[in-house]
Amino acid sequence: MSSYIEPIELLAEQFRRLPGVGKKSAVRMAFSVLEMSVDDAKAFSDAIMNAKTSVHLCPVCGNMTDGDICSVCSDESRDRTVICVVENSRDVIALERVREYNGLYHVLGGVISPLAGIAPSDLNVETLLTRVAGGEVKEVIIATNPNVEGETTAMYISKLLSPLGVKTSRLAYGIPVGGDLEYADEVTLNRAIEGRREI
Amino acid sequence: MSSYIEPIELLAEQFRRLPGVGKKSAVRMAFSVLEMSVDDAKAFSDAIMNAKTSVHLCPVCGNMTDGDICSVCSDESRDRTVICVVENSRDVIALERVREYNGLYHVLGGVISPLAGIAPSDLNVETLLTRVAGGEVKEVIIATNPNVEGETTAMYISKLLSPLGVKTSRLAYGIPVGGDLEYADEVTLNRAIEGRREI
Repeated sequence: MSSYIEPIELLAEQFRRLPGVGKKSAVRMAFSVLEMSVDDAKAFSDAIMNAKTSVHLCPVCGNMTDGDICSVCSDESRDRTVICVVENSRDVIALERVREYNGLYHVLGGVISPLAGIAPSDLNVETLLTRVAGGEVKEVIIATNPNVEGETTAMYISKLLSPLGVKTSRLAYGIPVGGDLEYADEVTLNRAIEGRREI
Repeated sequence: MSSYIEPIELLAEQFRRLPGVGKKSAVRMAFSVLEMSVDDAKAFSDAIMNAKTSVHLCPVCGNMTDGDICSVCSDESRDRTVICVVENSRDVIALERVREYNGLYHVLGGVISPLAGIAPSDLNVETLLTRVAGGEVKEVIIATNPNVEGETTAMYISKLLSPLGVKTSRLAYGIPVGGDLEYADEVTLNRAIEGRREI
């Protein structure tokens, strides 16, 4: 005999599938749903299906959107000569939060990773080449993460782009603002020295 | 113009209402739902409404159940002479996990808390008195949490029970197993000394 009640157990199992949620948190979350009003629980339940069914990838850049094309691609005020290549839509959100970058994006939907079984052909690269070949683009900023997979992907894309005669750049890597030299790892410090700038 | 997509934003807001979920975790969770298959998202969405609609309180003890009466109350092998009084159904789960206690439960559905506006009349106490007055019960273990509200509630219930001539006990409080005297707070240490036992 289980002390759990089956519908609660099933709901907790669903919560456990979310990132960063352990067994105890999942049970707490399941109970918090029971404490909601029926309307609130319905709104929660509907939000899941609504997000899942209405969100799809922008045919231009591969970013997530609930419209025909995404809000960045459809924004006439953005600089159409620069494209920033990122791994996923969360990276777009992170960059948009800075309010510094005003160009377009291109979302790869992953990085080359033989271990995870992701080959170059699985990435949204074809459309990037078509966009760049269009001639309007002057610079492509490759903003994949600074790890093995991200670097490999950056190298791969820059090689594909080089015959098109477009300027290709990579984000600067170094010590994060507010960081401490003492605690920075060797690779980051090495990158910081390599990328030093005159003042 | 927001860089978020509305359905994702709405879903993240729903996740933020769960205990222990901050803004960034909520966005991560919302994106993880988008990465699920449609069937999985449907199962998640349904599990919420299913838990919410099928789970109700056991009319005997106030524990949560999806049946007529809860699994503990309906289990013929349990010792019906002992009732353990707890604050909520999560406490029942915690105690059941120990596999030591074989009596029945009574779930109060809260503790007396003037700050939170919970009066003694809001608690599930009437039915406890009826159960004890039935005559079969020999002991009531009051297992409310060892904080101000829990202690107040324990005092209140033991006063109500005293005319019924039933044995009333409280869980032992002291240093947790694996704990360290050095780091125990004064109140816990005081309880540990008060509750010392001969060896």
